[in-house]
Amino acid sequence: MSEAASRAIAMLEPLLGDRLVTSQAVREHHSRDTSRLAPAMPDAVAFPRDEAEVQAIVRACAEHGVPVVPFGAGSSMEGHTIPIKGGISVDTREMNHIIAIVPEDSIAVVQPGVTRKQLNVELRETGLMFSVDPGADASLGGMASTRGSGTTAVRYGTMRENVMALRVVTPDGVAIHTGSRAKKSSTGYDLTHLFVGAEGTLGIITELTLRLHPQPEAVSSAVCSFASVRGAVEAVIETVQYGIPVARVEFLDEVAIENVNSHSGLTLPVAPTLFFEFHGTPAWVAEQSRIVEEITAGHGGSGFQWSTDADERGKLWQARHDLYWATKARRPGCELHTGDICVPISKLAENIVAAREDIDASPLIGQIIGHVGDGNYHTAYLIDPHEPAELAEAERLSERIVERALACGGTVSGEHGIGTAKLKYLRREHGEAVDVMKRIKAALDPKGIMNPGKMGQEG
Amino acid sequence: MSEAASRAIAMLEPLLGDRLVTSQAVREHHSRDTSRLAPAMPDAVAFPRDEAEVQAIVRACAEHGVPVVPFGAGSSMEGHTIPIKGGISVDTREMNHIIAIVPEDSIAVVQPGVTRKQLNVELRETGLMFSVDPGADASLGGMASTRGSGTTAVRYGTMRENVMALRVVTPDGVAIHTGSRAKKSSTGYDLTHLFVGAEGTLGIITELTLRLHPQPEAVSSAVCSFASVRGAVEAVIETVQYGIPVARVEFLDEVAIENVNSHSGLTLPVAPTLFFEFHGTPAWVAEQSRIVEEITAGHGGSGFQWSTDADERGKLWQARHDLYWATKARRPGCELHTGDICVPISKLAENIVAAREDIDASPLIGQIIGHVGDGNYHTAYLIDPHEPAELAEAERLSERIVERALACGGTVSGEHGIGTAKLKYLRREHGEAVDVMKRIKAALDPKGIMNPGKMGQEG
Repeated sequence: MSEAASRAIAMLEPLLGDRLVTSQAVREHHSRDTSRLAPAMPDAVAFPRDEAEVQAIVRACAEHGVPVVPFGAGSSMEGHTIPIKGGISVDTREMNHIIAIVPEDSIAVVQPGVTRKQLNVELRETGLMFSVDPGADASLGGMASTRGSGTTAVRYGTMRENVMALRVVTPDGVAIHTGSRAKKSSTGYDLTHLFVGAEGTLGIITELTLRLHPQPEAVSSAVCSFASVRGAVEAVIETVQYGIPVARVEFLDEVAIENVNSHSGLTLPVAPTLFFEFHGTPAWVAEQSRIVEEITAGHGGSGFQWSTDADERGKLWQARHDLYWATKARRPGCELHTGDICVPISKLAENIVAAREDIDASPLIGQIIGHVGDGNYHTAYLIDPHEPAELAEAERLSERIVERALACGGTVSGEHGIGTAKLKYLRREHGEAVDVMKRIKAALDPKGIMNPGKMGQEG
Repeated sequence: MSEAASRAIAMLEPLLGDRLVTSQAVREHHSRDTSRLAPAMPDAVAFPRDEAEVQAIVRACAEHGVPVVPFGAGSSMEGHTIPIKGGISVDTREMNHIIAIVPEDSIAVVQPGVTRKQLNVELRETGLMFSVDPGADASLGGMASTRGSGTTAVRYGTMRENVMALRVVTPDGVAIHTGSRAKKSSTGYDLTHLFVGAEGTLGIITELTLRLHPQPEAVSSAVCSFASVRGAVEAVIETVQYGIPVARVEFLDEVAIENVNSHSGLTLPVAPTLFFEFHGTPAWVAEQSRIVEEITAGHGGSGFQWSTDADERGKLWQARHDLYWATKARRPGCELHTGDICVPISKLAENIVAAREDIDASPLIGQIIGHVGDGNYHTAYLIDPHEPAELAEAERLSERIVERALACGGTVSGEHGIGTAKLKYLRREHGEAVDVMKRIKAALDPKGIMNPGKMGQEG
């Protein structure tokens, strides 16, 4: 441990007591995320309970020039929370209080360690829900920091649209608030959106005001197979253009369908497939389903089945959520090398088809799934972690999907973020705007202590 | 004219020719906006045609330390475009090209001088529309810079939600792009949202990528009178909580109803009133109208009438849009002193009732209207510009609505912005976050040339 870190830790021990931990096991837990990226150990892990403790931690680290790395549920897939320069990992799991739920305003105010499932359990009786669903039971602070989204973003938006206001401890230890409880505002620079997606490099979020949505009165789901990827994507484009506010629309390619069939006991035809979900009044849900059935039929869709049965729907979406594990089960001991491309929807079919052709021509096994209403698709290649050639091949495939996405006006990450894994693509996507980002980082964090070695400093 | 301004102008004359104007008339036109605020003359007005010309202007001004003040349609209500430190007013009216419309992706790419009506005329045949409607036929660059919104924001969002990407010339003359054509992204700091609402203090927007929405298949509108303000607001809250995606819902108080009746020949009952608009399929629009009729009846609403007749709807909304002139007509020679408060909707009734009581107890005539689905209400006091006592009284009333808004978690401007008129409230709303804004401004505009004397420097 560096002398600076020792001093910062010594300064914080009287305040945090046994909530400042240097044991090997706890530090190891904070050295990795869910990705295949190399771990790196923090010097200590702090478990603050409130904003004042976060301020004390940041001030001590600022004084001694020690890195501060925010940590939520650890479900990052790109290395965001890995303390690559050491320092103190600030785990928000004890900041897990729901501060207020205001049904009349459709908002909830929470500490950053509250998870999305925890919030939704609490909301059950209110008729409201928190919509953003990345699959994992992530912390809301972490979801905000990575601008997370998931299956429902097509209807309800991502964290970008669902965070109304924040409290943040900036790198000098000052606590500020951004935004307000008003639904809109034209006052001041939009600092809320600056901190959403900043991946903990500009400060630590200590409180979030979140937008809630009405629990739908009725929900229907549908499955439909297609003769081609293009047919499936064109059906989605027409659905969106028609103005159908589809709540979820997920694409699974043939390989992904094989994986859910074998892992979750489904018997879906092995073909490009869409899972739909519709929210609304009973009459409106039925009308949406009927219109979409017609649209899919016009694009080679077959076997369109819709249902308002909750059990049937539950089984379908559970299978979709379990796909990560279903895929890993296909090759024991493997790791997933994942991609997270988002393109204009008009370019989605050609991007997915080309990615599929690349995989088919490669020795690697890979699948493609997508939140296709947003133009967001994920690749997952199964690689043996002990075979450098397989990693190199996965990187080669990744390079090609990135190149195609940028060439057609897309982005290298729809929802997973930059972390360390995608840093190499940041300037290719944003060009000289990266220098503006660096100037903002330097202005807010002149000592470079907040999650160092990542966005704002590198790239 | 300062020596610095003369030098910058001399440097730009060969490039811009007769599109660099120093005539009294043109400078006067750029010295004011639609507000009652004191005018201030620019040293010259430039009419660039493309981004490269904007870069040249900014570079010349940066070299000589001359202020650069972006100017769109001049429809600001808070003094944003008034060149209070002189310099060059950069009028974007010749940057009025629609660069691309991509129906499959529901996006349009435009130069900043394109107005919202111009864009919607161009979109007519595509089945798509640009939704943000502030009333005035504002330029899209100006609407982005002030984070504008209006009547449809409750359904389709404000400029915050409808600007996907920008090109911007930063204060050092570098042109950057922010965002992408992808519907969502988790890469990099969210610079798009930093420039949206920055009021031209961080750079000049040279291109916007905008989100479009499907033109609704059917539209219905409705009018309903209420016994009380509270009843009207509670009906709106219940409508939103029910999940009805109301497209517009406007509140007019008794005074505003008197004004539209006398100016636009309507015969509405003089009572707190809601104007509704619903978008969707014919069946869904009918269902929404029926549900909202029931909801309003439960809150003392009476005379609920809905219709899908376009002429009837046109007359109603024209009357609403003409209200500004209707109100001015009430007292010839007067000016309007306007407020633009936005509060959590749960607090809206008590805020409006208190504001109404203040006006009733004041010698001034005033009305209250609102985009109530968003909790946004506008006050307008009729004042004689030659009577300082009336201005002082209007300021006293404003102070009280601001105080109440901030006390309940609201904002001092829902959509008009800060400009110069609301600068005095910026720190009261944002506290120490204003210092973060100032650090960002200093980092991006170290010479302080972009729209100086406003947000980022003052407040």
